[in-house]
Amino acid sequence: MTFTLFHNCCAATMDPARTGVWGAVEDAAIVCRQGRIDWIGPMADLPAARAEGAQRADLAGRWVTPALVDCHTHLVFAGDRSGEFEQRLSGASYEAIARAGGGIRATMTATRAASIETLTAAAEARIRLLMRGGAASVEIKSGYGLDPDSERAMLIAAGEAARRAGVRVRRTFLGLHALPPEYEGRREAYVHLMAHEVLPALHAEGLVDAVDAFCETIGFTAAETQTLFEAAARLGLPVRLHAEQLSDQGGAALAARYGALSADHLEYLSEAGARAMAEAGTAAVLLPGAFYALKETRRPPVELLRSLNVPMAVATDLNPGSSPLVSPVLAMNMACILFGLTPAEALAGMTREGARAMGVADETGVLREGLAADLAVWEVSRPAEIVYWIGHPGPERLIIAGQEAPA
Amino acid sequence: MTFTLFHNCCAATMDPARTGVWGAVEDAAIVCRQGRIDWIGPMADLPAARAEGAQRADLAGRWVTPALVDCHTHLVFAGDRSGEFEQRLSGASYEAIARAGGGIRATMTATRAASIETLTAAAEARIRLLMRGGAASVEIKSGYGLDPDSERAMLIAAGEAARRAGVRVRRTFLGLHALPPEYEGRREAYVHLMAHEVLPALHAEGLVDAVDAFCETIGFTAAETQTLFEAAARLGLPVRLHAEQLSDQGGAALAARYGALSADHLEYLSEAGARAMAEAGTAAVLLPGAFYALKETRRPPVELLRSLNVPMAVATDLNPGSSPLVSPVLAMNMACILFGLTPAEALAGMTREGARAMGVADETGVLREGLAADLAVWEVSRPAEIVYWIGHPGPERLIIAGQEAPA
Repeated sequence: MTFTLFHNCCAATMDPARTGVWGAVEDAAIVCRQGRIDWIGPMADLPAARAEGAQRADLAGRWVTPALVDCHTHLVFAGDRSGEFEQRLSGASYEAIARAGGGIRATMTATRAASIETLTAAAEARIRLLMRGGAASVEIKSGYGLDPDSERAMLIAAGEAARRAGVRVRRTFLGLHALPPEYEGRREAYVHLMAHEVLPALHAEGLVDAVDAFCETIGFTAAETQTLFEAAARLGLPVRLHAEQLSDQGGAALAARYGALSADHLEYLSEAGARAMAEAGTAAVLLPGAFYALKETRRPPVELLRSLNVPMAVATDLNPGSSPLVSPVLAMNMACILFGLTPAEALAGMTREGARAMGVADETGVLREGLAADLAVWEVSRPAEIVYWIGHPGPERLIIAGQEAPA
Repeated sequence: MTFTLFHNCCAATMDPARTGVWGAVEDAAIVCRQGRIDWIGPMADLPAARAEGAQRADLAGRWVTPALVDCHTHLVFAGDRSGEFEQRLSGASYEAIARAGGGIRATMTATRAASIETLTAAAEARIRLLMRGGAASVEIKSGYGLDPDSERAMLIAAGEAARRAGVRVRRTFLGLHALPPEYEGRREAYVHLMAHEVLPALHAEGLVDAVDAFCETIGFTAAETQTLFEAAARLGLPVRLHAEQLSDQGGAALAARYGALSADHLEYLSEAGARAMAEAGTAAVLLPGAFYALKETRRPPVELLRSLNVPMAVATDLNPGSSPLVSPVLAMNMACILFGLTPAEALAGMTREGARAMGVADETGVLREGLAADLAVWEVSRPAEIVYWIGHPGPERLIIAGQEAPA
């Protein structure tokens, strides 16, 4: 199927060049050729020559959207944390679990001990869950290795898992995720190692598409983050930032100063931070899974972001601790219910704006001629219904580069 | 496969006769014969004669639990309410939507207008979603027809949809769900009609397994509920009750006085109500989907229920308005995250205690000799992991009456 005419469908193109929040085309035709969208528009307008010789695929009136883009995940890791989840719900405190070697340290230990093949197989299985939920593009961060070899292993596993599953991937170096125990009391040395040795080496191997850090009281300071961002700038790598999740560290403004693709979480974002993002064109990545799982009560300032036209992306944040969320569809529903996004904002957040935050807006995220033929086909009566059901398994079909992805 | 030995698995039997919260059997054998569990225990203890001639099914180390029991749903309805969902998130108030004919009235209108076949097909599709999430038993309520013919149509559709999908079903008459517009100002006449005419007629047709009402300021009073319960008692039908969801109406105590199978929702349950339930053996059905979708902040008193040994069931409450939740697995996760149940309580709530609330505890809900061979097979490292993932699609395999259910 390298040349296909999808017809008898409605398209929510999410293309701002079309009218309405969905950029909808009723009775649409989508011509896909060699992995790209060759033509899209109303069936009645399709020039016969554009689809001559194409295989015809009747979509029986279904709605088609861009395949989803999950722009923030930590899906390479070994060991789950269900034991810890159980302990917490049985009354154990976070502190007690951390003292017993739980939390991110447990994931670090398991990840360091795992082979690249083990990490790859586990990551591939998780990517396939995201695909069931409609994703064809996935960003994956390192950050559970926290030493040179283990960070490298994570990024290799991320790329290989994505290749096996058949999704678009961007790999983000998150060496400044947590301070590993062997560097306790030597923060500066760790930051130096990551910024000046590990990042350049991994970049030289072609393993890094972007750089990220966890800027937080329990993570790294703004100054430490800046050291890393300077290193990224020297390498010409775009940056992103875990910012203002648990407190306002001025991370969003810092990220904006470096022209970041995105600042992510943002529950404690200030108005100044939001204005800086707006000016820099930095996207806000909203992560309702962590908000839900951590039982947070402070929401990111969605109305402020909306009023300043800051692009809002939505992602699963798939990780073993604060957000073991494996469903992009549910992430969109949570963005509506928990954060107050409209259904169209939620879908844009996991398509067009997710692609922007991930740095792949020139490839995917809207249905438009020239972009990838990555489509999700939904059995719904209107696009809002995609987001309305809670815990829905996902689209009926996922098409990646014009080809049916296995269910 | 009417005679099968499932082996090379671990079983979370949920049988209180076994030790531990999961009633776990490591390296288990489960012999299923003619739809029932003929033998279950450690493989090493299996008498050879019990499995002689059985087909052997190697479960590759997976965990097996009872198939899930979704004991509270409203899954027969026409029309979704995604348009309303969109309007609300775009700023429209509940009141404005209700005045425009939205809310439960919209569902009533669509349901009344639908044929039994239309209702059946839609219900079957929803049951299949619940099955993907692990359910083999589903309770289904009427209550969107609100006139004699439409209530009857809903119950017929419920039974036929369950038969087509191949799940166990119990049908609950919920005539006192909302006052239909044609009875405005004539509440007493409506209650009389439902209690004294519609219920007996539908029961005579064999369409009713239990009776329920929505006892709430915006629903029916305790006295009106009592009228219905008296009618149910005369027919020998068990009762259940939507109680204390939005306010304390003394519904739980009323339900307990009638020996109710369950009182459901219970966010505003008083200690006296909980004590009455404990004495009557009435189960508490917790419905985190509605709590989540309505953005409620008051939780049911889980610690109180636990301390009084009130059985706690968990269900999806699948309905088009307050809980379009189609995933039993997610309902369990929400019961933990939002209500503070332990993973074992959540799984018990959707197996053993769900079966109790649904009145089918003598058929299913635990893995025990003599009960139905309804099994869910999960690719997890421990039972808590079933509940840990957020938005997980469900079990790898669902076995109903010893036979593989279609995915």
